[in-house]
Amino acid sequence: SSSTTPITATLFPGDGIGPEIAESVKKVFTTAGVPINWEEHYVSTEIDPRTQSFLTWESLESVRRNKVGLKGPMATPIGKGHRSLNLTLRKELNLYANVRPCYSLPGYKTRYDDVNLITIRENTEGEYSGLEHQVVRGVVESLKIITRQASLRVAEYAFHYAKTHGRERVSAIHKANIMQKTDGLFLKCCREVAEKYPEITYEEVVIDNCCMMLVKNPALFDVLVMPNLYGDIISDLCAGLVGGLGLTPSCNIGEDGVALAEAVHGSAPDIAGKNLANPTALLLSGVMMLRHLKMNEQAEQIHSAIINTIAEGKYRTADLGGSSTTTEFTKAICDHL
Amino acid sequence: SSSTTPITATLFPGDGIGPEIAESVKKVFTTAGVPINWEEHYVSTEIDPRTQSFLTWESLESVRRNKVGLKGPMATPIGKGHRSLNLTLRKELNLYANVRPCYSLPGYKTRYDDVNLITIRENTEGEYSGLEHQVVRGVVESLKIITRQASLRVAEYAFHYAKTHGRERVSAIHKANIMQKTDGLFLKCCREVAEKYPEITYEEVVIDNCCMMLVKNPALFDVLVMPNLYGDIISDLCAGLVGGLGLTPSCNIGEDGVALAEAVHGSAPDIAGKNLANPTALLLSGVMMLRHLKMNEQAEQIHSAIINTIAEGKYRTADLGGSSTTTEFTKAICDHL
Ligand SMILES: CC(C)[C@H](C(=O)O)[C@@H](O)C(=O)O
Ligand SMILES: CC(C)[C@H](C(=O)O)[C@@H](O)C(=O)O
Repeated sequence: SSSTTPITATLFPGDGIGPEIAESVKKVFTTAGVPINWEEHYVSTEIDPRTQSFLTWESLESVRRNKVGLKGPMATPIGKGHRSLNLTLRKELNLYANVRPCYSLPGYKTRYDDVNLITIRENTEGEYSGLEHQVVRGVVESLKIITRQASLRVAEYAFHYAKTHGRERVSAIHKANIMQKTDGLFLKCCREVAEKYPEITYEEVVIDNCCMMLVKNPALFDVLVMPNLYGDIISDLCAGLVGGLGLTPSCNIGEDGVALAEAVHGSAPDIAGKNLANPTALLLSGVMMLRHLKMNEQAEQIHSAIINTIAEGKYRTADLGGSSTTTEFTKAICDHL
Repeated sequence: SSSTTPITATLFPGDGIGPEIAESVKKVFTTAGVPINWEEHYVSTEIDPRTQSFLTWESLESVRRNKVGLKGPMATPIGKGHRSLNLTLRKELNLYANVRPCYSLPGYKTRYDDVNLITIRENTEGEYSGLEHQVVRGVVESLKIITRQASLRVAEYAFHYAKTHGRERVSAIHKANIMQKTDGLFLKCCREVAEKYPEITYEEVVIDNCCMMLVKNPALFDVLVMPNLYGDIISDLCAGLVGGLGLTPSCNIGEDGVALAEAVHGSAPDIAGKNLANPTALLLSGVMMLRHLKMNEQAEQIHSAIINTIAEGKYRTADLGGSSTTTEFTKAICDHL
């Protein structure tokens, strides 16, 4: 069911290799005939006081208006006293769920060939509250906040996702044996939602045990839902199983149908501008955006072209052991369309 | 340099399979002629009001007096309102560092054959503060506490360990890009200690990236030091790389030379009493205890016997794909001595 009325989507090419991989997405989407007009917004060189970050207010407004966007890497400066761009986007746009499918790519060998899971991360609270202070000299504390509202919301998203995507099981990841109140509330909310989905198997797995099981036998997992920091950790671990963040897409889901797809790898300043970057994660994130827009035909077409190009192995970027440039790899994908 | 004056050590056989694997350790140690008298303490069936747990005050006193002990698994009841036995031990005995060596076992195949690292976990504070409360209905918070004193202490332990064990690099694991004050203080302390050890390479790795690197290429790591929860997560992940908690030892280090070696796997109530349990983790933890006591000759002898028995593969317990009983496996180790 492909739409023909063009849709306007926000595009944040981002920093470093961002503009090159965004170029790749535009090329592939145009070749596939995707009816999207991109509204491009760049990271600013000055802090916008309205967002307290290098992200301008106008760019946030663009996503709010279009309700859909695609985002490349934005460098997060450590300890410079201003807010991370990634977090600013998630918080300002109330992007409450971060969805990361993670599956073994045919033809791209890692130690695992049987990964096929989805991590769904609460994206607005938990250990990312930003509330920290010094109690006395040499004693600092940070607050982890868990709310019933955000926990129910992400749990509902996870179960609904499982149901509508033919998934059978949802695992809630936690450390409620230690954080009985915070993670306990998260689990309580998951259980409440689980009751509404009797056709989906529900289980609870302690985070340390989950990580051990993931590296031993990732095929045990299907959909995983969890508080913010655990999601941060486990989604990267899972990406590592199939080759890394250069190959795995993500999409941030907000209220009222807002979706911001996002490549979560770094901006790789060392290779920026050299036509060496691997656009796969941004392309696959773009595919998630298309599915969100119900442009399923183009989504599957582009998805197959990416997968087949990588599987054939003739054109691969350096990070995948090949010697293709970004443009050569992009052209190979277009030739598969 | 083996001591001949017998030493008294506390032994907590623990729950479930604990007594069987403790029996195995006693047998192997006796066969190797280790000069240790065990002072056995069992988990109680009643909560001792002085410890608020099933662990008696007398058993804590035993470790305080002997300064050395070995501990089997103790079941941690979830959400029953009393403290976990493992945590009670760590807190009451001020066991500030949890040391877990993790290496590929020759002859026991996993997806990784190149793991050789040590995780050193801060064991007394962080996310394990136990400080949690409900702010308003539906909003709960938990406090993560990082102190300069505990961070310096565990960092000092990690660098000293690296230096005295021929290790080259210490990686501090953190999420200071998000928790700038708490994890920031932890890093600051690590940096201070690193300056005193110019011969050891020091690096800082963000926890999500660390997990991705660990599953892609664990050989990148040597000694890892980190706050409590990250240590909990990463040590289990690393154990998973080489086969699981049934094969990996640990030792908790306290002030004044106190050491409590510990098998950190579960109590496996399903197979308890059936002579099916794998004693390897407790045996290897016992070896760590012997090294701590400078009984290096017996430590190496027992270590080799365990490793060779597993490598030969003739006698293995069911969890390792074999069909030996605990006693058969134990006897095979003794025959290697
Ligand atoms: C860059 C960083 C702030 C971010 C996070 O911690 O969420 C990243 O790791 C991610 O997973 O998107
Ligand atoms: C049982 C549990 C309380 C414990 C912890 O979280 O520390 C365990 O996972 C461990 O690593 O020893």
